[in-house]
Amino acid sequence: MCWTSMLVIVFLLLVTLCAQGGNGEEREGAQRQGHVSVMIVGGTGDLAKKYLWQGFFRLYINQVGQGNTFSFYAGGLSPSDETTPIFFEILKAVSCSKDVSPERCAILKDQFLRLSQYRQLKSLEDYQDLAKHIEKQLQEEGMTEAGRLFYLSVPAFAYADIADKINSSCRPTSGAWLRVVLEKPFGHDFRSAQVLASQLRGSLQDEEMYRIDHYLGKQVVAKILPFRIENKKFLDPIWNKHHIERVEIVIKEALNVKGRISFYDQYGVIRDMLQNHLTEIMTLLTMRPPKNLSSSEEVLQNKLHILSSVLPLGKNQAVIGQYQAYNSEVQQELNKTKDHVSLTPTFAAVLAHIDEAQYEGVPVLLISGKMLDERVGYARILFKNDIFCLENHNSIHCKPKQIVFYFGHGRLQYPAILVSKNLFKPLSLNNEWKEVTEHTDISVLGSPISDYYVQTPAEQREAYVELISHIYAGRKNSFISTENLLASWDLWTPLLSSLASSFPRIYPGGVDNGNLLDIHLKGTAITYISEEVIISPDQMGGTSSNSFQVIHGKFRSADMVSAWAEELMERLAADIQEAAEAAVHDGGVFHLALSGGSSPLALFHRLALHHFSFPWRNTHVWMVDERCVPQTELESNFHTLHDHLLQHVRIPYYNIHPMPVQLNQRLCVEEDRGAQLYEKEISKLVNGSSFHFVLLGVGYDGHTASLFPGSKIDALEENLVALTESPVKPHQRMSLTFSAINRAHKVALLVMGKGKHEMVTQLSRVKDNLEKWPVTWVKPANGRLVWYIDYDALLG
Amino acid sequence: MCWTSMLVIVFLLLVTLCAQGGNGEEREGAQRQGHVSVMIVGGTGDLAKKYLWQGFFRLYINQVGQGNTFSFYAGGLSPSDETTPIFFEILKAVSCSKDVSPERCAILKDQFLRLSQYRQLKSLEDYQDLAKHIEKQLQEEGMTEAGRLFYLSVPAFAYADIADKINSSCRPTSGAWLRVVLEKPFGHDFRSAQVLASQLRGSLQDEEMYRIDHYLGKQVVAKILPFRIENKKFLDPIWNKHHIERVEIVIKEALNVKGRISFYDQYGVIRDMLQNHLTEIMTLLTMRPPKNLSSSEEVLQNKLHILSSVLPLGKNQAVIGQYQAYNSEVQQELNKTKDHVSLTPTFAAVLAHIDEAQYEGVPVLLISGKMLDERVGYARILFKNDIFCLENHNSIHCKPKQIVFYFGHGRLQYPAILVSKNLFKPLSLNNEWKEVTEHTDISVLGSPISDYYVQTPAEQREAYVELISHIYAGRKNSFISTENLLASWDLWTPLLSSLASSFPRIYPGGVDNGNLLDIHLKGTAITYISEEVIISPDQMGGTSSNSFQVIHGKFRSADMVSAWAEELMERLAADIQEAAEAAVHDGGVFHLALSGGSSPLALFHRLALHHFSFPWRNTHVWMVDERCVPQTELESNFHTLHDHLLQHVRIPYYNIHPMPVQLNQRLCVEEDRGAQLYEKEISKLVNGSSFHFVLLGVGYDGHTASLFPGSKIDALEENLVALTESPVKPHQRMSLTFSAINRAHKVALLVMGKGKHEMVTQLSRVKDNLEKWPVTWVKPANGRLVWYIDYDALLG
Repeated sequence: MCWTSMLVIVFLLLVTLCAQGGNGEEREGAQRQGHVSVMIVGGTGDLAKKYLWQGFFRLYINQVGQGNTFSFYAGGLSPSDETTPIFFEILKAVSCSKDVSPERCAILKDQFLRLSQYRQLKSLEDYQDLAKHIEKQLQEEGMTEAGRLFYLSVPAFAYADIADKINSSCRPTSGAWLRVVLEKPFGHDFRSAQVLASQLRGSLQDEEMYRIDHYLGKQVVAKILPFRIENKKFLDPIWNKHHIERVEIVIKEALNVKGRISFYDQYGVIRDMLQNHLTEIMTLLTMRPPKNLSSSEEVLQNKLHILSSVLPLGKNQAVIGQYQAYNSEVQQELNKTKDHVSLTPTFAAVLAHIDEAQYEGVPVLLISGKMLDERVGYARILFKNDIFCLENHNSIHCKPKQIVFYFGHGRLQYPAILVSKNLFKPLSLNNEWKEVTEHTDISVLGSPISDYYVQTPAEQREAYVELISHIYAGRKNSFISTENLLASWDLWTPLLSSLASSFPRIYPGGVDNGNLLDIHLKGTAITYISEEVIISPDQMGGTSSNSFQVIHGKFRSADMVSAWAEELMERLAADIQEAAEAAVHDGGVFHLALSGGSSPLALFHRLALHHFSFPWRNTHVWMVDERCVPQTELESNFHTLHDHLLQHVRIPYYNIHPMPVQLNQRLCVEEDRGAQLYEKEISKLVNGSSFHFVLLGVGYDGHTASLFPGSKIDALEENLVALTESPVKPHQRMSLTFSAINRAHKVALLVMGKGKHEMVTQLSRVKDNLEKWPVTWVKPANGRLVWYIDYDALLG
Repeated sequence: MCWTSMLVIVFLLLVTLCAQGGNGEEREGAQRQGHVSVMIVGGTGDLAKKYLWQGFFRLYINQVGQGNTFSFYAGGLSPSDETTPIFFEILKAVSCSKDVSPERCAILKDQFLRLSQYRQLKSLEDYQDLAKHIEKQLQEEGMTEAGRLFYLSVPAFAYADIADKINSSCRPTSGAWLRVVLEKPFGHDFRSAQVLASQLRGSLQDEEMYRIDHYLGKQVVAKILPFRIENKKFLDPIWNKHHIERVEIVIKEALNVKGRISFYDQYGVIRDMLQNHLTEIMTLLTMRPPKNLSSSEEVLQNKLHILSSVLPLGKNQAVIGQYQAYNSEVQQELNKTKDHVSLTPTFAAVLAHIDEAQYEGVPVLLISGKMLDERVGYARILFKNDIFCLENHNSIHCKPKQIVFYFGHGRLQYPAILVSKNLFKPLSLNNEWKEVTEHTDISVLGSPISDYYVQTPAEQREAYVELISHIYAGRKNSFISTENLLASWDLWTPLLSSLASSFPRIYPGGVDNGNLLDIHLKGTAITYISEEVIISPDQMGGTSSNSFQVIHGKFRSADMVSAWAEELMERLAADIQEAAEAAVHDGGVFHLALSGGSSPLALFHRLALHHFSFPWRNTHVWMVDERCVPQTELESNFHTLHDHLLQHVRIPYYNIHPMPVQLNQRLCVEEDRGAQLYEKEISKLVNGSSFHFVLLGVGYDGHTASLFPGSKIDALEENLVALTESPVKPHQRMSLTFSAINRAHKVALLVMGKGKHEMVTQLSRVKDNLEKWPVTWVKPANGRLVWYIDYDALLG
């Protein structure tokens, strides 16, 4: 489809320029000299008006006389005669930097205006005409073409169509580059971003696309990686979990979104700010600095590595808010009725953790919102207090230690990098940054500015000016590659889904917010501190979280504990710890046999994250059953246990007992006698082969461990371990037998989820039946059996 | 031997009292009613004068009419006629608590004086006379004996002798208890404490001994465990590494030690304060609270557990100081010449870490000193900041969170437990503590007192009054058991030895100390912040720490890196990381083979503690060689590797490859084919069986891996792994062969220590000789060999 009602007016004039990369960092594409055509599609829109033409004018000034020639085109939907005057009004506003004299500026501006024209760009023919126009120009002037730059400053839904038109009719002559610049949003979630990316890939090569994240053009943001590399010797020892207390990335805005609601209400603050700007900044702060800053590939790989290391973000990692007036603004701008409720968040705080040894446990807070108390943006690395001051005096070394990348606005009003004087004096290796030594009496993030070394750009430059010069130079590092984009959406999409029907906390806006949006970090979770939540009437009903309670009863004549899933897990984990402590107290060791399956995952999680005093050092972990697959495969029960529990606790290597399903490089072959090997290990280490605690699950078919209905299970079998057959893949299993299970001191049978309700109902009625209902055969001879059944499974 | 020149005067009067335990917590010994004889040996000394008689008077007041009768004896070296008047002067100073009316107090005091007498207690006969006296008394009055309490307020060297005399001549009649109270010091180090303990054990049973640590009698210290139990529901979620930022236990004194130097100069602050008071407080703060507070056994076991979990304390965990005037005080009091230098520290700060998952990484600071800016004692648990305040306002929840056990003095002037209001409101379950709500305008440890919930004892009681009542009630929890004492010395003795010849930093004393004693925590190490160290002239010379440097050269035609040990380790660790990163970058995996022995320990330490970004997740760890002992034994190379490295990093279970020295429950039997098994594993996982990095050592005899001189090593052997024989025990080994070693991409040969110098010299001369010098056969075919030799080994 064609993007309708688009007009193109073209102003063209030629000035001899000489495009000279002159810089080892720049890509080959920028090297060929000749003529460059710049097209801003949407060239009279807000963004173009405010930033883009200014950016291209600055580019022009810098490149004048450097070898290339230019023409500039504004593309738009309306006809040329209507829009040309408006376009020239826009162009008249562009300005030179201070180092250009007014006389020279006037000349350059005049040249620039003469090189620029407006063209209607709507139909395929318009694009073809543009192409013809450029080619004719090149021929007439006898110029080589250097490249074509299309800046798409249009709604994202039009990207694919325009890219298609560019591809089919506006590609430059052979040997010249094509660069197509895109503005966010790049999709709405992972799926839509993927669709958009694949549509664009149909027309453009990856290296032809320049996705703008204008924060990457901010001087302080662009300086993060160079700063980390230049100050490597100071940062290396402290840039890790042992020294960093937390990382905060905060972009606060004081304005509302009036006038932009038709866009904003579909996106909200997470898609508008966190998925892109804040994620990029987090990446720059935590990625491994590249050996070669100009290697886009290395930078990209290091970025992807960090993005893939961020622990999954779920509902517990976010709080959201919406400023009070927003909903009525939505009703107004979108013509909705008075009962329309928008759930779009205008404020969000997200707590991320990076699953790398270097950053283990370091909270990374990403926060942004509209209608907050002030406009300010910063990233702050707060270090742990590693000083003890005997007299509590005010000596500099007793004070907080932090590094602040201050993007601008707020109290400081200028972009800067601030390093607490008690950390180190940062190096600055070039002339582009200067040290600020004269300070007014202000305080930045809790410390008076005189407590910092402060560096600021020698000359402040607009983000778009910077980015346009990078596009021109072909420096891809400042742009979002497809892989990077998808990795980011991959991170954010599950959170967005889980929040889709959540009610944001309503906040009045401005300083009236008080502490309504203050945040409490609770391990990996995050909540608002204050509890006075304004609940929307729609939010009432449903299961109240206060209805958690544990009931004790009987099930199949054995003890039963029942509760909502979360409470049940807490109880089971506590019971296991109690058993562990008692066993360690009595005999110095605790033998725990664990099942596979998905139900125990929450248990593993709870044990890993909440039971700090669990006597792991004295605990042996055994497997109840195992699939005949290599340990290293995801399907392996041991693999699950390892990743979700064992890796997170300090249990000695020799206390871990995976089942030997793989011997002689083959799986569960009878002659390899793996079952007998495991049995011997049990007999040797476990007193009387009686595990202290055995955790079992129950399958929909009534199986437990890997003892399935219908398979020959010898009730009298003396072996503790056996090879068994499962009706589902992988068929081969190794399993403890009832002989082993029923020797245990305590057996827990865990049943969770609505899906199990039917089976629980049946189980409550059937007699013991080894053949049909293997689980009924769990009857510890001298031990205790307890059923742990959640309300979903019990009550359906 | 007899403690000479001791006199005993006895005042005895009987008053009918009724000793009634009436408390489930009290021990049986306290239950039998009858007559109690109290002997303060050293009964007119400073301590007795200042605290003990007052304590016993209070005991008397409390017990009057409770069922038991009493007599009190002061034992001393001087004859009765000399000392009796002095003794009565002391007794006249005792006072009643406020709740006793002056009239009643006068009566009680009069009774108490009549019950008390001074006796010379010097020779065995004196003790025999005392015993006869007591027995006669009992007979005459027809009283059952309840017990005898000896309070030894004498120098520690006299303990054994007095205990012996008590044992041989002063034991009470059958069925009555004997309690002997001892004051610190309890030894000078582990060995002397052990000797003293075993001497005492020859005369007294453990349960008869009451070792006083008067801090345990301070009300706030005694409240630590009950507070932790009462507030369990608040503390459980936060009393761990995830929430505690640090623990500080600080006892600052403003006085000097003039007049006590003959004692003090032999002990110093670590023995005087840290080994006992501060250690006990640390234990109470970190031990698992007992299920039953009155179970001495449970409390003791939990204390011992924590003490054994404290990571070893070495020179790097302590800084010491000495106040400037101290040395001249020593010269004066000990009659030393002007060139006498005392190294006794009067200030020490020690950084402890507890090797429990619950407290992993939480710094515990123990600090005490004389001549500091103020007198104050406290234990502070500072919690991590888990709040993000969007507007940095002063709302209470944005403030620091801490719990302070304030022992007394300082700004607050009264003992108290302070809990930040943004933590929780502590419960107080009895009437003995009251909440303080009216505050003066003072600030405690950085927070105004109004930010805390403050609890203080309803009635302030002297530590000795408390302890004496505990002794009387037989409550052993407030005293130091032999096991506890030895565990504490076990912790402190290595540090004391390592500091024995260290020069303390000299500090002027009082507020002039400025920041001279401020401390910098660096991971597990601690230093002073300021570098202006006043160096004693004697300290000059020796190896300057600035002479660390790395030299590169050739050794046996291969590359060599040489440096002081520490620097060498840094370099080797960095080289391994570099190899790891390169391998992971190229092929996604790094295969590292490590040797046993002691040299690599420092390397393991360095890798575990400093190389946070090491790609462990992609690293496979293999063994170069192994002793044929079970993995779980200390002798096992794998065990060392596990405890010093693997347990501290997040390496997947399946990437760990111990050598299978134990198969079929036997060790290194040829038919079990363990070597072949390991070889198969290598062939399967390691590309071309070429490890990326092999770390080897060299033995004094020139062996490397477990390839020993004189044993048949087939130079052409194709096997990668073999069973070998060592000349030293355990003789059986499993080892990589030269065939495996020489396939590696990089081989490091690590040689450290003066002991290896001779061998290094020989090695530099000999030709390759597989038979005599196996290490000369290390010649990677397509890889690189680097020798890492420290200066000690290289230069001797």
